[in-house]
Amino acid sequence: MRLALDAMGGDHAPKAPVEGALLFAKDFPQHEVVLVGREAAIREVAGSAGLPNNVRVHAAADVIGMEDNAGAAIRRKRDASLRVCFDLVKSGAADAVISAGHSGAMMAGALLVLGRLEGVERPAFGTFMPSLGTDAHGENNRCLLIDAGAVVECKASHLAQFAVMGSAYVRSVRKVAQPRVGILSNGEEEGKGTELTREAWSLLKGSDLNFVGNVEGQDIFSGKVDVVVTDGFTGNVVLKTSEGAAMAVVSLIKSGILGGGLLQKLAAWLLKPIFRGVRDRIDYAEYGGAPVLGVPKVAVVAHGRSCQRAVKNALRAAMQTVDAGLIEELERSFQGAQSWLPGRLPPRAEEQAQSV
Amino acid sequence: MRLALDAMGGDHAPKAPVEGALLFAKDFPQHEVVLVGREAAIREVAGSAGLPNNVRVHAAADVIGMEDNAGAAIRRKRDASLRVCFDLVKSGAADAVISAGHSGAMMAGALLVLGRLEGVERPAFGTFMPSLGTDAHGENNRCLLIDAGAVVECKASHLAQFAVMGSAYVRSVRKVAQPRVGILSNGEEEGKGTELTREAWSLLKGSDLNFVGNVEGQDIFSGKVDVVVTDGFTGNVVLKTSEGAAMAVVSLIKSGILGGGLLQKLAAWLLKPIFRGVRDRIDYAEYGGAPVLGVPKVAVVAHGRSCQRAVKNALRAAMQTVDAGLIEELERSFQGAQSWLPGRLPPRAEEQAQSV
Repeated sequence: MRLALDAMGGDHAPKAPVEGALLFAKDFPQHEVVLVGREAAIREVAGSAGLPNNVRVHAAADVIGMEDNAGAAIRRKRDASLRVCFDLVKSGAADAVISAGHSGAMMAGALLVLGRLEGVERPAFGTFMPSLGTDAHGENNRCLLIDAGAVVECKASHLAQFAVMGSAYVRSVRKVAQPRVGILSNGEEEGKGTELTREAWSLLKGSDLNFVGNVEGQDIFSGKVDVVVTDGFTGNVVLKTSEGAAMAVVSLIKSGILGGGLLQKLAAWLLKPIFRGVRDRIDYAEYGGAPVLGVPKVAVVAHGRSCQRAVKNALRAAMQTVDAGLIEELERSFQGAQSWLPGRLPPRAEEQAQSV
Repeated sequence: MRLALDAMGGDHAPKAPVEGALLFAKDFPQHEVVLVGREAAIREVAGSAGLPNNVRVHAAADVIGMEDNAGAAIRRKRDASLRVCFDLVKSGAADAVISAGHSGAMMAGALLVLGRLEGVERPAFGTFMPSLGTDAHGENNRCLLIDAGAVVECKASHLAQFAVMGSAYVRSVRKVAQPRVGILSNGEEEGKGTELTREAWSLLKGSDLNFVGNVEGQDIFSGKVDVVVTDGFTGNVVLKTSEGAAMAVVSLIKSGILGGGLLQKLAAWLLKPIFRGVRDRIDYAEYGGAPVLGVPKVAVVAHGRSCQRAVKNALRAAMQTVDAGLIEELERSFQGAQSWLPGRLPPRAEEQAQSV
């Protein structure tokens, strides 16, 4: 498999992407990473050791910056690294796009270059959140939050489609046969929520998904559900609130230890492996980035602050997603949802792609 | 001062309210608590020691249950403990209402019995969240989240009024002269957010408040703002998500320690005071409940799971709020906001109160 990695995306580019690619390439010699970006800058990071056989460079002179308008940049900067990544995937020269850059441009690239899968009105970001307990395979539980920030103002049909995409993703990637899906609300009872969540509730009630009803904020972490559906505004707030809350707890413990005596510092040292385990469990860098769901190819956006380890895990996540056959699972799922899912549209991939 | 406490409200009523009242009465002998509810049940909890001089019982035969419709229960169950609490405050026989019961009924009681302050369309719940760092008085920082769940679907004028109420509350209770107010959004830039948050942004931009613009989820905990304004749906989700995320971290550390060796268990024992300090900092029971803001009297709703300590802290919070002159501060603030705040309505306290 060949993965197109945006070497210019993220706060630490091109260093973190290039080093992440090298880590991945070493662990998975059977796969190839294409580093897309400014060749001289990429080769400088690689240094005198050069690049291994399974890491190639695909030169792209331009870069999409955080200040760029996402749609306009994807349309007009045809030689920008991220745009070229999408073109490689579109043409079949690569199997997935990975970037730690502008997430809006990632979504714009997915939409404008790849187009949408049939049945999808608005593609969304899914993101795994750590949750307590283990699953049927003995793996740590995770809960997929969808949408994590792409579609700020939603219709109920969008939420219902997010539920289909989220279920398909969890089914294929985590091998959970019937992912439990909940709608994020301000109470569990049927009548709770906004007009939007109540309408989505009605749609999902009549669906072929394993719909468990409304769930509350704490249920994201409790292991009670596999997929939590929400609009992109709330999803983004939830994502940042939980990062903030978890980091606040960690920071309070740290400052308590720093203010403690010698014995407490020794105790903290003894507990280091446990603290590290917790950090790994809640660390975005371990989770391998957020997939763009609803488009006909695999695209993964990594955190803007991604270090090399985060980039490597994003590459691995993309690889696993391709391996798991996500796109086929998504197509099957939308096919199966025809009877109850509103808002199906004719496929627009072709005409959109041609207009770019 | 006299505080009317709903002795029948909360998961652990009447035990937790009665015991919480006794704790408070001991610490603050100059004040009086009126326990409102079923006399026999209250006296049974008090036991043979009886009640001290500054704790009285006001008999009320009925109870508002969690399954009751809030508005209907307040209107029709005239002898319910919570309704009687509001009547006592309305008539001037008590200075504040405190309950760990049905929060919807609390809001309904505040609205229907007390009415709204001039300028307020919809009263809201404020709730303090722990945030990092210390304030000008050397106290731990706190951030007020408003609305925490009362007004699920909001207009921009509601959000603007929440900003006024939240600022007035923080100014009077925390003695912060110019509380920094932010709108919770999915990004800091002006254009980010929904139609609702963008409209609220425009209103607050032209206000006399210390408006810092949009803030993101993590800013609730960073010490960057004193008041975070949001609709009741998002506020409720944020509140429960942060509780869930913080508890998940604590639970992961705990299970790591339980799975560790003897040395690690010893280390954890040594760190117990630090862990306890962190717990107290993030524990809702320490925060003394959420005030109902926008009504002409002090009303505090405590967590449904409140233990005696939480009830005691809610009583203390109500006392401090009365002492701080919140209502006068709210009236002054809405008076001062006349020039820029839309949605001012004639006071409806009188006609509403008469219709109950």
